Amino acid sequence: MIVNDPETLAELQALYPEYERALVENDVPTLTRMFWASPLAIRLGAGENLYGVDEIEAFRRSRPAVNLARRIVRLEIVSFGKDYGSITLEFERDTPAGIVRGRQSQVWVRLEEGWRIVSAHVSVLPIKP
Amino acid sequence: MIVNDPETLAELQALYPEYERALVENDVPTLTRMFWASPLAIRLGAGENLYGVDEIEAFRRSRPAVNLARRIVRLEIVSFGKDYGSITLEFERDTPAGIVRGRQSQVWVRLEEGWRIVSAHVSVLPIKP
Repeated sequence: MIVNDPETLAELQALYPEYERALVENDVPTLTRMFWASPLAIRLGAGENLYGVDEIEAFRRSRPAVNLARRIVRLEIVSFGKDYGSITLEFERDTPAGIVRGRQSQVWVRLEEGWRIVSAHVSVLPIKP
Repeated sequence: MIVNDPETLAELQALYPEYERALVENDVPTLTRMFWASPLAIRLGAGENLYGVDEIEAFRRSRPAVNLARRIVRLEIVSFGKDYGSITLEFERDTPAGIVRGRQSQVWVRLEEGWRIVSAHVSVLPIKP
């Protein structure tokens, strides 16, 4: 099991900013395309637990496209073999109540259709005003 | 890429309760052994972000061994190929303020030393009293 094979890592490093851009711009087609189109896909969001591509896409379509901007304060990308990757980041978002500090972790797998996020987890820590 | 190969899935299904038992009993040696012994291991906890096996183990050693009991209310295990798995669960914990609803996601990789958790993310949703 090769950890951080340079070519595999480079592929994931190129995919990460594409997802980040789509997220901040609320580009639902791109976000949906980057997730695994399967009933087994999972997205645990900051306030909701979504199971399967249908729940994930429905959530994205209903989400207001505001206040999505965020600062990335730490980013870690690790690959395993040629087909698996884990992308973890910490972000901050300014709100009237203070700075929200959040975390996002994603599991990436290279499927026949290409690299897809098969599972993601987003959460926020308590606000420190 | 075979999803949910029965043998691979069975291995992960056997590992999950071992981790759960160790967590609830605060069995630090077992928890530490089940995590990847690498500076690249990551554990985003309910209130802390830990990078590398040293930070993860130090946190576990300093954690009070109380109030760790929890009810599992949903469990999803998905494997990819023979060497990669994603374990996601929702849990509930009773507290004086109400029921805490939490989520835990883990990335499992079969390394030379065996199956290890290479990344984990635990978070809680706001309490509904």
